[in-house]
Amino acid sequence: MNYSAIYHEATSRYCYAAAPGRFVFRLQVGRGDLRRVTLYSQDKYISQHRRVTPDQTPMHRVASSRFHDYYEAELCFNVVCLRYYFKLEDWDGTVSYYANSEFMDSPPTDIDRMFDCPQTLREEECFTTPAWAHNAVVYQIFPNRFAASKPVADSVWYKAPIGPMADLKGDLRGIIEKLDYLAGLGVQVLYMTPIFRSNSRHKYDTVDYYTIDPSFGTEADLIELVQKAHARGLRVVLDGVFNHTSPDFFAFADLKQKGEASPYKDWYYCDSLPPKAPLGKANYKCFGYYFGMPKLNQQNPAVARYFTEVALYWLRTAHIDGWRLDVADEIGHSFWKQFRTAIKAEFPDALIVGEVWHHSPDFLQGDEWDSAMNYPFCNAVLDLVAYGTIGPKRFLENLGFLQGTLHKQVYPVLWNLIGSHDTPRLLHRCGENLHKQRLAAALQLLLPGMPMIYYGDEVGMTGAHDPDCRRGMLWDERRQNTETLAWYKTLLAVRRANPALTEGALITEVADDEKGLIWLTRAHGGKTLTTLFHTKGGQLALPQHAGKQNLLTGKPFAGTLGPWQTAVLVE
Amino acid sequence: MNYSAIYHEATSRYCYAAAPGRFVFRLQVGRGDLRRVTLYSQDKYISQHRRVTPDQTPMHRVASSRFHDYYEAELCFNVVCLRYYFKLEDWDGTVSYYANSEFMDSPPTDIDRMFDCPQTLREEECFTTPAWAHNAVVYQIFPNRFAASKPVADSVWYKAPIGPMADLKGDLRGIIEKLDYLAGLGVQVLYMTPIFRSNSRHKYDTVDYYTIDPSFGTEADLIELVQKAHARGLRVVLDGVFNHTSPDFFAFADLKQKGEASPYKDWYYCDSLPPKAPLGKANYKCFGYYFGMPKLNQQNPAVARYFTEVALYWLRTAHIDGWRLDVADEIGHSFWKQFRTAIKAEFPDALIVGEVWHHSPDFLQGDEWDSAMNYPFCNAVLDLVAYGTIGPKRFLENLGFLQGTLHKQVYPVLWNLIGSHDTPRLLHRCGENLHKQRLAAALQLLLPGMPMIYYGDEVGMTGAHDPDCRRGMLWDERRQNTETLAWYKTLLAVRRANPALTEGALITEVADDEKGLIWLTRAHGGKTLTTLFHTKGGQLALPQHAGKQNLLTGKPFAGTLGPWQTAVLVE
Repeated sequence: MNYSAIYHEATSRYCYAAAPGRFVFRLQVGRGDLRRVTLYSQDKYISQHRRVTPDQTPMHRVASSRFHDYYEAELCFNVVCLRYYFKLEDWDGTVSYYANSEFMDSPPTDIDRMFDCPQTLREEECFTTPAWAHNAVVYQIFPNRFAASKPVADSVWYKAPIGPMADLKGDLRGIIEKLDYLAGLGVQVLYMTPIFRSNSRHKYDTVDYYTIDPSFGTEADLIELVQKAHARGLRVVLDGVFNHTSPDFFAFADLKQKGEASPYKDWYYCDSLPPKAPLGKANYKCFGYYFGMPKLNQQNPAVARYFTEVALYWLRTAHIDGWRLDVADEIGHSFWKQFRTAIKAEFPDALIVGEVWHHSPDFLQGDEWDSAMNYPFCNAVLDLVAYGTIGPKRFLENLGFLQGTLHKQVYPVLWNLIGSHDTPRLLHRCGENLHKQRLAAALQLLLPGMPMIYYGDEVGMTGAHDPDCRRGMLWDERRQNTETLAWYKTLLAVRRANPALTEGALITEVADDEKGLIWLTRAHGGKTLTTLFHTKGGQLALPQHAGKQNLLTGKPFAGTLGPWQTAVLVE
Repeated sequence: MNYSAIYHEATSRYCYAAAPGRFVFRLQVGRGDLRRVTLYSQDKYISQHRRVTPDQTPMHRVASSRFHDYYEAELCFNVVCLRYYFKLEDWDGTVSYYANSEFMDSPPTDIDRMFDCPQTLREEECFTTPAWAHNAVVYQIFPNRFAASKPVADSVWYKAPIGPMADLKGDLRGIIEKLDYLAGLGVQVLYMTPIFRSNSRHKYDTVDYYTIDPSFGTEADLIELVQKAHARGLRVVLDGVFNHTSPDFFAFADLKQKGEASPYKDWYYCDSLPPKAPLGKANYKCFGYYFGMPKLNQQNPAVARYFTEVALYWLRTAHIDGWRLDVADEIGHSFWKQFRTAIKAEFPDALIVGEVWHHSPDFLQGDEWDSAMNYPFCNAVLDLVAYGTIGPKRFLENLGFLQGTLHKQVYPVLWNLIGSHDTPRLLHRCGENLHKQRLAAALQLLLPGMPMIYYGDEVGMTGAHDPDCRRGMLWDERRQNTETLAWYKTLLAVRRANPALTEGALITEVADDEKGLIWLTRAHGGKTLTTLFHTKGGQLALPQHAGKQNLLTGKPFAGTLGPWQTAVLVE
């Protein structure tokens, strides 16, 4: 048995409440190392007074990463404390695994040596994510570049490459006019990068969190946008930049003017006052050394309160559905804890999504964010499809790592992006290979999670790194790739009509590196679907699947997948 | 390379600030699997603008558990974000380990694939534990049974076995009279189990948190006790029972009387009101199903405030030095976070120690407790010495697991007990074998951490499980084992005079199961000491050490250790 791979501890990472009275137990073991895993459990305090036969619950494998299997069991109970241990069986024998990472040939006789699950403690941490968000599809808009309500010359709108300060005059009214397009496309959530008053085009250096940038419109426009979005079944998420502000934000401006006398002197991280940035060196902390983005001191309760109120204001006033939070991993955990508490107290259904580029279990334990920008997913898709540096096995293993190490409530709300305003466009990274782009979109839209489509990817937009990835949306149908658009619409319609794809129990999972094949079969509500992804060029014969109905074409599957082709087959 | 054993994530468990600007990086790998580990790091944001050569920092092994080595590096830097990865070398080759648990043959070219350490985030979590507590020795007193200021008949005081409600009339004045004894013994911290008004003998069901139990004395007595203890260099820690109360506590009493109309109806967990406990079943949650200990709802902010104020009151009024917190692992993390914040804001040097019987990294991340009752240490000593179920290797591995998985600031303040009012006495568990007891005491007192001596162990007291482990302290010298007492005094004096034992850098670590030998050599401030523990019966010849000065005897070491014997040798 590979003991060095085995891990559990009685903390909320591995043992947590999915609902009051319902508890999830997770155990990490070596990949393929065990043939059977059983959870033994008993009431701690009853056991102190009389002999108790422990309950036995079989555990099942819920995910696998490159080197680990993740086993899970759910238990319902009502006790003060549960004591438990694991019986692990491989092909050579059986060992008991209990607290403090001890392994013994026989079960522990002393119940104090078992793992411990105090019920109230675990129930307090009970982590639910908004049901509406589970597996919903997000559409990301960069407002200056998405749609303008007033005419803009094609020579301006479609200019490429584009400069960072190019003003395409996109606005909220423009977005409102395109809501039918978005609803028709089949997405469920609209996420806009920042829309508050700012002097930049990207608006990530906010001057006033309570005012819509005049170039975008007014508060009334936002309210109308949200209302009309809701009427079409679309949710709206705004971008909250609470890590830093513009130097023109009132507090920093006051600090520059009054120095030590400013009531805002503890709102930023200043080495000396007033804040200055001469000769390429600032005396205050910034985001990424950009002097135009002084870093807020969110450890200051007054600052934390101010920005929590900002978030509440727009939830109350415009009835938005959640916040995507910029550079959220550079703000402290104490801020996010109090932020979540305040937001969820009033808006339990609001979605809280943090920007982070890495595996971040610490922010996703239930007391901070609901979800994160899933860049590890993005990396896995790019490595498989765009760069060809990994094969199907590694792709599934990389997703398995996320699934096995994050709470199960998080996995269906992770924002599965494959590009954003901060990266080159997917098509660009795919070397303009449309087949590759479409496979990437299929992987994004046919797997669980919240796929995030970056505006324009669906009509064949391309572009290198920022600012080139922020060109004007291709509204002119002659400029659109209508085949790509049809592909996205099909994927979105099939995803929506078939919860088996996202919620179905996994029946078959095949990753064949030689063939370049990913084969997933899932069942849900009496419907069984097989998804086949061909992750290579050339033809792939799959005669055993020939004749089944392909939901992506509406025709029987001919038995062969072309280069980077996908099929969703009804079993 | 054993990939399945390797783990790091950029969370405060594995990457944390030891001080502003000074950061600790920890990496878990397979035991004995690697020959060299190097941390590569570079500034994230600078790297986005120009090519940067990463810094290389060698990592060193700081602990080993049964199946893992724990490597560590400390880095000082001042950046917005540090990006880093690990280069791992075994005897076959080299791999790079980076974010999302990816392994590659070559270093990552994309800095976004590296691990990420945002400096402000990590600095906010900076975890310091009170310097005075590092490696200090605690003495635990059960007040009713330690010392009585008024005469008590020997037939009462020394009665054994003893009943749970036996009243030995021990009091604070009695303890005050014994402060010279404690100072002379050589301990540094006095910890008393609860002293507030309660109807039980153990006082763990508190009726009034603001009143000293009249049988123990008055608030003035406590103030005098603390003052006189401080005058002798002794710190004082009280026991805070904030998980539950007595049913006679004012809030529960009000609830019983007024039911729904009580302003305290959300102070407990009641299924219905008023609370009742007829026929062996209560309609409210309790500690361990004891109806006499209704469980407090610490998720209620009013309750959390009340008990935080209790803790602050005694810090302010009696100038105590910290709190040991009863059943602390059954109270929620949110309570402990706000408790720590409030306590440390006013008393940064107060020690916060949680009762838990297991490995509990979640409570020991820096934002809740400083320390915990180290029952895993207790188990390791008992298994090695009292039960003989493990040998020296496993003993050191079990301690290595704690050292490798807990923050380095925690390890020197863990309360290393080998028995308490909640367990049979050490001597009883050693089958009354005095040699074994003395070896256990030596392991406790010659290793880093905060040893906790349970009152009377040092004079040879024995006793089975509660209530028998709570007999009256053996003050009568004719009843004491004076050899044991001399042994404890020697160990304490040697520990105190030789910081090398607790703070010294480890030079040699040998665990020989066949010989039953643990050999530790540590150096500190120009002094090098070798500690030899013989963990078996019989004689053990160690001729290579013969002639060195033995600090425990004051004589040259003869070259042989007797049954369960210990030596501390000057190199």
